[in-house]
Amino acid sequence: MTQRNVSIEGLDRPAAEETAVEIVERKGLGHPDSLCDGIAESVSRALAAAYLERVGRVLHYNTDETQLVAGSAAPAFGGGEVVEPIYILVVGRATSEFEGTTIPTEPIALEAAREYLETHVPELEVGTDVVVDAKLGEGSGDLRGVFDESGVPMANDTSYGVGHAPLSETETIVHTVENRLNGEYAVDHPYLGPDIKVMGKREGETIDVTVAAAMIDTYLTDVDAYASAVTDVREYVTGIAEEHTDREVTVHVNTADDYETDSIYLTTTGTSAEQGDDGSVGRGNRANGLITPNRSMSMEATSGKNPVNHIGKIYNLLSTEIAENVVAEVDGIAELRIKLLSQIGRPIDQPHVADVRVATDEGVALGDVENEIDRIVDRELADVTGLTERVIDGEIATF
Amino acid sequence: MTQRNVSIEGLDRPAAEETAVEIVERKGLGHPDSLCDGIAESVSRALAAAYLERVGRVLHYNTDETQLVAGSAAPAFGGGEVVEPIYILVVGRATSEFEGTTIPTEPIALEAAREYLETHVPELEVGTDVVVDAKLGEGSGDLRGVFDESGVPMANDTSYGVGHAPLSETETIVHTVENRLNGEYAVDHPYLGPDIKVMGKREGETIDVTVAAAMIDTYLTDVDAYASAVTDVREYVTGIAEEHTDREVTVHVNTADDYETDSIYLTTTGTSAEQGDDGSVGRGNRANGLITPNRSMSMEATSGKNPVNHIGKIYNLLSTEIAENVVAEVDGIAELRIKLLSQIGRPIDQPHVADVRVATDEGVALGDVENEIDRIVDRELADVTGLTERVIDGEIATF
Amino acid sequence: MTQRNVSIEGLDRPAAEETAVEIVERKGLGHPDSLCDGIAESVSRALAAAYLERVGRVLHYNTDETQLVAGSAAPAFGGGEVVEPIYILVVGRATSEFEGTTIPTEPIALEAAREYLETHVPELEVGTDVVVDAKLGEGSGDLRGVFDESGVPMANDTSYGVGHAPLSETETIVHTVENRLNGEYAVDHPYLGPDIKVMGKREGETIDVTVAAAMIDTYLTDVDAYASAVTDVREYVTGIAEEHTDREVTVHVNTADDYETDSIYLTTTGTSAEQGDDGSVGRGNRANGLITPNRSMSMEATSGKNPVNHIGKIYNLLSTEIAENVVAEVDGIAELRIKLLSQIGRPIDQPHVADVRVATDEGVALGDVENEIDRIVDRELADVTGLTERVIDGEIATF
Amino acid sequence: MTQRNVSIEGLDRPAAEETAVEIVERKGLGHPDSLCDGIAESVSRALAAAYLERVGRVLHYNTDETQLVAGSAAPAFGGGEVVEPIYILVVGRATSEFEGTTIPTEPIALEAAREYLETHVPELEVGTDVVVDAKLGEGSGDLRGVFDESGVPMANDTSYGVGHAPLSETETIVHTVENRLNGEYAVDHPYLGPDIKVMGKREGETIDVTVAAAMIDTYLTDVDAYASAVTDVREYVTGIAEEHTDREVTVHVNTADDYETDSIYLTTTGTSAEQGDDGSVGRGNRANGLITPNRSMSMEATSGKNPVNHIGKIYNLLSTEIAENVVAEVDGIAELRIKLLSQIGRPIDQPHVADVRVATDEGVALGDVENEIDRIVDRELADVTGLTERVIDGEIATF
Repeated sequence: MTQRNVSIEGLDRPAAEETAVEIVERKGLGHPDSLCDGIAESVSRALAAAYLERVGRVLHYNTDETQLVAGSAAPAFGGGEVVEPIYILVVGRATSEFEGTTIPTEPIALEAAREYLETHVPELEVGTDVVVDAKLGEGSGDLRGVFDESGVPMANDTSYGVGHAPLSETETIVHTVENRLNGEYAVDHPYLGPDIKVMGKREGETIDVTVAAAMIDTYLTDVDAYASAVTDVREYVTGIAEEHTDREVTVHVNTADDYETDSIYLTTTGTSAEQGDDGSVGRGNRANGLITPNRSMSMEATSGKNPVNHIGKIYNLLSTEIAENVVAEVDGIAELRIKLLSQIGRPIDQPHVADVRVATDEGVALGDVENEIDRIVDRELADVTGLTERVIDGEIATF
Repeated sequence: MTQRNVSIEGLDRPAAEETAVEIVERKGLGHPDSLCDGIAESVSRALAAAYLERVGRVLHYNTDETQLVAGSAAPAFGGGEVVEPIYILVVGRATSEFEGTTIPTEPIALEAAREYLETHVPELEVGTDVVVDAKLGEGSGDLRGVFDESGVPMANDTSYGVGHAPLSETETIVHTVENRLNGEYAVDHPYLGPDIKVMGKREGETIDVTVAAAMIDTYLTDVDAYASAVTDVREYVTGIAEEHTDREVTVHVNTADDYETDSIYLTTTGTSAEQGDDGSVGRGNRANGLITPNRSMSMEATSGKNPVNHIGKIYNLLSTEIAENVVAEVDGIAELRIKLLSQIGRPIDQPHVADVRVATDEGVALGDVENEIDRIVDRELADVTGLTERVIDGEIATF
Repeated sequence: MTQRNVSIEGLDRPAAEETAVEIVERKGLGHPDSLCDGIAESVSRALAAAYLERVGRVLHYNTDETQLVAGSAAPAFGGGEVVEPIYILVVGRATSEFEGTTIPTEPIALEAAREYLETHVPELEVGTDVVVDAKLGEGSGDLRGVFDESGVPMANDTSYGVGHAPLSETETIVHTVENRLNGEYAVDHPYLGPDIKVMGKREGETIDVTVAAAMIDTYLTDVDAYASAVTDVREYVTGIAEEHTDREVTVHVNTADDYETDSIYLTTTGTSAEQGDDGSVGRGNRANGLITPNRSMSMEATSGKNPVNHIGKIYNLLSTEIAENVVAEVDGIAELRIKLLSQIGRPIDQPHVADVRVATDEGVALGDVENEIDRIVDRELADVTGLTERVIDGEIATF
Repeated sequence: MTQRNVSIEGLDRPAAEETAVEIVERKGLGHPDSLCDGIAESVSRALAAAYLERVGRVLHYNTDETQLVAGSAAPAFGGGEVVEPIYILVVGRATSEFEGTTIPTEPIALEAAREYLETHVPELEVGTDVVVDAKLGEGSGDLRGVFDESGVPMANDTSYGVGHAPLSETETIVHTVENRLNGEYAVDHPYLGPDIKVMGKREGETIDVTVAAAMIDTYLTDVDAYASAVTDVREYVTGIAEEHTDREVTVHVNTADDYETDSIYLTTTGTSAEQGDDGSVGRGNRANGLITPNRSMSMEATSGKNPVNHIGKIYNLLSTEIAENVVAEVDGIAELRIKLLSQIGRPIDQPHVADVRVATDEGVALGDVENEIDRIVDRELADVTGLTERVIDGEIATF
């Protein structure tokens, strides 16, 4: 219908809500893998901004390989301490010289990583509890060659992205629980650390939500306070879940705790990185913030990649945006899944194929919504460079 | 039907061969991500063997976090050189002391990594072209507590694994091409490096196979020899593909080459890790050796995890084995997908659910094969500890 | 004369002032080698304090091996930037567990190093311009075995220390120039960085003082301001020198500058560590703050060593203290040099020999001052553990 | 007498043999500090050779900052093992690009370090027992500017070197003992590791030689074999000492051993670097291979410095050579000490002053030998570039 190769068909599998079993997971901001994702993306944004400021365009870089080596801690009610520091190695490529202008890539990366950690894991003293180092090899300079005459980058790889909307109930619950725990709840309850792992499992009409939440010792005086905190989190999470479903919900918080052996999830810094959990980029949440084995997923590590021309990053983020926008704008869609496949050497707003699969609400035929979907997909593809800008501005989450 | 919770139903989506578009990828042994997978798993096996030899049981460890920082090289026909060494950091946890016995975990890890590299990237001189370092934190000692009375480990996490069989034509081609290029072809043609990335894309009845193969400069005298090597690889791959499909096949090898600007895929060591491509564990192939966005995938990084009790590793490998065995032993199955979901605190041979989905051949009803499938699934689950042994012995590939 | 083996004889060489040529050097606080000395000693003091606080005694440690790998910078009048961060690796041994108490040795070391850098090189942003990492191996625990019944440690090595007093004119000038430039002058003139290297060369009655002073770009608007700063420093240094000698003095500041090629000693952070100058412990100033090839020197790296029982550290510091005290308290001494030699297994207040060499003023015989010297040497040796305390309290400089 | 500023006077202090107390030390090849010296110098030679081969001249570099972080081992009679690997970081500057030619500085450094270790500590498996990494910053390119028209480099710093000859008896014994133990003795007695520390202390006519020798467990079956080895070393050392002196000699070997507590100097690799002893460059032997607090010493770390234009390295090595040659060629000299002082901007064969101090044999007047000495000093200075060549060829030891 458009010049772009958009294919719209009926969904070839049951909608997520109709499957027998659904598993959904989200690793919260303070999880070691998410910390690496967050640092990698934060470094990416800082580099992109520095390039724009200094040379007027984003140069070649990719910083999608941060590695976290866990430390050890001795948590104690009222305040423990880190015993062996966490070690974080920021890895990637970045262009450090362009037409006579120097770009201090490693200092920029180190500063971005430090600020990210100070913002998101405030109990972790950077430089003492965690050592951050950087190994950024040289990039290959200019990306100008990758743009066509209209300023749209060319795909430099055969890659693809997938997105879907709307989220299922279980997905919504998992995502919302982590967001609100790490948001308003943590503000009011400083004992809650950012390392919150949420797993949702739906079997038929029953949803189990399992939360592993790192509690921070400084704000808890004793084991009773800890137990009370666990209870409060459970009640809060139950409340959130019930806002989003009428199914039966059971919430478990820190189920591995064993009070008899004092084996509880107490931390000094609010992240299990202080207790032997290593982390790296791209091992956790997909671009939409969730791990959804029931859905098509891309293995692409989105965080840290160059948002100008890394097709895997762009198409994963764009797919999710398109799916969300279509569902928001078009009535009658029960579920939409889109897969964007690139073609080497063609502008990225011209995918090899945009494969859209749609399940419509009862009483709605695919033909009723097809044109509208096509229009929106086309519009979003046409604005692909706008997505790059929003990524650089930090308006789009990558994990 | 059995004591184990095996659920067998019809497949809820089209079989892979019947989908409109299929994308399959395999990162070959010498790809930076695969190198990390291979090292991580090799270190894991070496540690497991050392524990068995020294203390009679496998102790706590996980070594699933190797990070590779790329170097740079100056390839040249007839033999170039590495200019900046690659850096590999082996990361993980491992128990170094148990009941008075010391286990030299880092030397074991370093030796395993070195041997792995020497075997699989022979042109890479370890210690000169690549620096291998290790940071293995302390593990938490004994795993005895995780076994039930019959010696079966308990699941320590809610996790899952997925597997399917048989491979589709496209999957078979992609897997076989990499295997044979890195096998018999490389033996006969030393110019072919181990960093071979194969992507298969099927649209309807047309299959495109794209191979990016790192050529080794020492064995190529000039650009004509290079071009001839590329042609030979293409013909060889075409031959393999045609053994496995009657569909139309087009093979592309090193399509990004530009002879006019001397921009070709020539390397000194046979891996792009010498040219700015970083790598880490769990970012590439899934446990069955492929990346298959059309299939259910687990995000679990299988390589490097402890095969005794890491439920994510075990269930991903086991799912694949079960699927393969069922399809091999039972006639009439067109496609089988199995998902194993663990339950914390229960023996791992008793999954929370073994969810089997089957598409039968024409003329075969699900009921005709159900019992047989159930029997095999049950048998394989009963022998889950046998899988652990085969992993330690290196008989099962993890990536 | 005393129970201690103190030997007092006439000096067997000309007094320093009477030699034909005298060379004296001091690497200022911001010199890469001095930064390593300062960090090593700062880490040592922090560990000693932590041990005292947590377990009531100093445990085994030695942290005398900090290595600094230089970075690079792009200084510019008005404010430049660090381009590649400096890397500092704090190396040593420290006991991290004692009778159930954990001592977080690496976090303590990292914090001490950071505070030291922030205090002494304030323009250097720790974590961005410089990465500080630590590798502290395990120490061997308790030092109790090293004390005799009266609480004096036993010498665990055959080692020696040397000291002399008073400083010669050239030595005094060199030491004072660096101290005052890095003190009052820098306070008033923020353009002066802490990396100040002072070399004094006396030939007969002529003294040349050569100062290499890292200027800080933020506080200098242009090359004229720089030139003016150099002139001011020269005048200030000349003034100091003339306070301490009647000899002819010539002062050179930043003599390697070449204004025509813009090759001047301009820095962003005030240390040449930003410009390719690596550093390590024990390569610069001796325990008395000077490098004096005309004098007996010990190769011992004093900074970072354990002040409780490291005999090389203690005897070098003590020798200098004794020499200074004797010369301050006893009239008629032109020059005194003392060498303390330890004996393994004997209390450190009982050196194998305290070898004192004295040149007396004209008209004074050795016999006139011998008893008094012996008394003071004896007194100072008796109080050797007091020196340990003052080292821990930071009252005694080690470089 | 010559155009060079050579000053020859009588020695202003007693000859070494006539002092009351003499202390001499040598850290053997396998001592952690000496390993760093050896690696640094080996890297230096490899770089110089690579520069000569690739661009026809030595470019800017200095690699005098290797840091060794000790590991730990579990030695056991018949063969123990390294438990935590040693870590060696080769630090320095080196030019990696010159007029279009690339020089792979880090691979060259890593290879040189590895070969050095394999040659001198053969029991240490590089890559398993020891991790070698390199951080070589960029040098500043060409050194051509430093040469005058006749090809002699200009001094780029005010520095000095000192040398003396002949060695005193105690010095000779200490040097010879280490050389022969690490030479013929080790060949015949593989149980003797290269980490041999020799201290000689002469008081009047009594010489104590204390040897700390790391024994290698593989070659010793039990404690009796160890004790027997210690006895054999003592006898061998006593024999060497008696070849060089008529004074009374007592030899102590591994005096810190305590057989009752099994605390003996048994190692797996032959170096204490496996047992918590860190090391770095320039902390041990001076350029003549000895630590001699009774003599004038330079603090310069000779090993690893650029032999073309690093004046501190050149003058320390040259001073020693001159002293040795004069004493060898001129009869009647009891002791000679020479100090070479450079002047910035003048050719290095024209020192600011060559200050020679001579003690003559009884019956010989200074005037009898002055001309001859002057001639030799002049000749050696004229051939200063020959010294550079011999350093690059490895013919001159630097520690």
